[in-house]
Amino acid sequence: MTPSRSRPRVGFIGLGAMGRPMAANVARGGYELTVWRRDPSPPLALDAPGVAEAASLAELAAACAVVVLCVSDGPDVLDVLFGPRALADALAPGSLVIDCSTTSPAVAQDAAARLGARGVDFVDAPVTGGTEGAERGTLTVLVGGAAAAVRAAEPVLATMGSRIVHLGPAGAGQRAKAVNQVILAGTYLAVAEGVVLALRTGLDPSAVVDALGTGAAGSWVLAHRAQRMIDDDYPLGFRLALHRKDLRIALELAAGAGASLPVAALAATLEDGLIAQGYGDEDNAALARAIRALSGLTQ
Amino acid sequence: MTPSRSRPRVGFIGLGAMGRPMAANVARGGYELTVWRRDPSPPLALDAPGVAEAASLAELAAACAVVVLCVSDGPDVLDVLFGPRALADALAPGSLVIDCSTTSPAVAQDAAARLGARGVDFVDAPVTGGTEGAERGTLTVLVGGAAAAVRAAEPVLATMGSRIVHLGPAGAGQRAKAVNQVILAGTYLAVAEGVVLALRTGLDPSAVVDALGTGAAGSWVLAHRAQRMIDDDYPLGFRLALHRKDLRIALELAAGAGASLPVAALAATLEDGLIAQGYGDEDNAALARAIRALSGLTQ
Repeated sequence: MTPSRSRPRVGFIGLGAMGRPMAANVARGGYELTVWRRDPSPPLALDAPGVAEAASLAELAAACAVVVLCVSDGPDVLDVLFGPRALADALAPGSLVIDCSTTSPAVAQDAAARLGARGVDFVDAPVTGGTEGAERGTLTVLVGGAAAAVRAAEPVLATMGSRIVHLGPAGAGQRAKAVNQVILAGTYLAVAEGVVLALRTGLDPSAVVDALGTGAAGSWVLAHRAQRMIDDDYPLGFRLALHRKDLRIALELAAGAGASLPVAALAATLEDGLIAQGYGDEDNAALARAIRALSGLTQ
Repeated sequence: MTPSRSRPRVGFIGLGAMGRPMAANVARGGYELTVWRRDPSPPLALDAPGVAEAASLAELAAACAVVVLCVSDGPDVLDVLFGPRALADALAPGSLVIDCSTTSPAVAQDAAARLGARGVDFVDAPVTGGTEGAERGTLTVLVGGAAAAVRAAEPVLATMGSRIVHLGPAGAGQRAKAVNQVILAGTYLAVAEGVVLALRTGLDPSAVVDALGTGAAGSWVLAHRAQRMIDDDYPLGFRLALHRKDLRIALELAAGAGASLPVAALAATLEDGLIAQGYGDEDNAALARAIRALSGLTQ
């Protein structure tokens, strides 16, 4: 296949817990897919038809007019684009980079400017919806970038997400993702405190959660994560350590913008303690471990 | 009408923002209704058919086999029942008191024991759903009490609420209400922090709220109160000062039970400041004023 503007071959970099099912959905959505992996030795194990594997970023760039990134953090994005293997140097003018990683807005603005100078478009497109959403293709994609670049990205994003929301220029998607992670932090703590109070006062916590879920205390976290807090068992989901990384981005953004977010800051320090105690690979709902511990509800 | 076991005349005490529409729904639900007011001089203005007004609690007790209370706090409940006007002394054995006020669980247990000694049943039945729910008859009612008393209360409660949930013996309804108010406190702060971060970083906050509402950050508060926080305008709703009262009950309950709830405690101290600044009569969503102020977003 040669690159095509109407149905381009898509490159995908970052086959983690989120990226793997997202890449599979791009392929199932009818795009020819080429992946590149830092370590190509394990089996590829990508549940999708006709996936090619590039031996280098340059080979991937030569085959693909659109490249999706889904790596861990901003430094990884900048390393892939502008580091020693410099994807940016190999991309043809007119290409498009879609960054689904969660990074600081500054990374998105920097990448957009540096790629723009080479005639390559960039959109930041962090996602919400967890591994369930990634597998089902029902992610919400929070998009920042120039209007023409976002229009070009939308058909590819539509294979991965059910809501594609353009929120402003480059960085706007990352700012909105930071807002999401801040709201999540507080909602997890809110539900954890309610669950712990129910447990400590001898209520049937599941009955209380069920009773309150249809009222003003209702939330996605209450509906989908309270039972894990009741059981004190936190299967993934979304890794606590990754939420802590996202809170670092959000709190740095907040500090730079003059916003003081006491509950998000509390969540961050509680997560630091939990990660140091070895709980970083559990689901984010494990924040309840901290409220349980404060309340003497240890296992 | 003489009191009837099958379709008793219902007494109602406490015609405030919640009690007034709840009483109207009891009357519309087919119950003969008698009310008593501490100050009977203003027009009754109860939008319901055939409502009688008793000149005293004794007169109300003589007419009614079921009495609903919807007053401000535990001391008011104990004053109505056991104070100088002692409703308890006038109630016939076999009567039923349904307390829809939000009080400490200890008040409910005390009232249940003292009324039980006189052969009068008691259930605590605090509600959630706000004035909208009270008007539409769609409240959730959190019920504590003995099974027979709760069965007797259910038809009356069904005129006021669409979910009637029996959670345990006397006091269990109040404990569950405390859990509700704790979860609400944290969720309000979570959404307020997200809104403030969106405002401070130049996002369109309404677009962000809309984008995040269908995902893991979604909640009733985000869907129904974020826009008030964006507008910095807090029409009722549910009074901030009443939520502070409920948090006092919840935090005392938590302390007695060995539960430490840092976010609820933060909400309480922020609400204290706001009440002292004159915002106690605004909607609970005015908690966002505190996060706005911390972030330099004053009007």
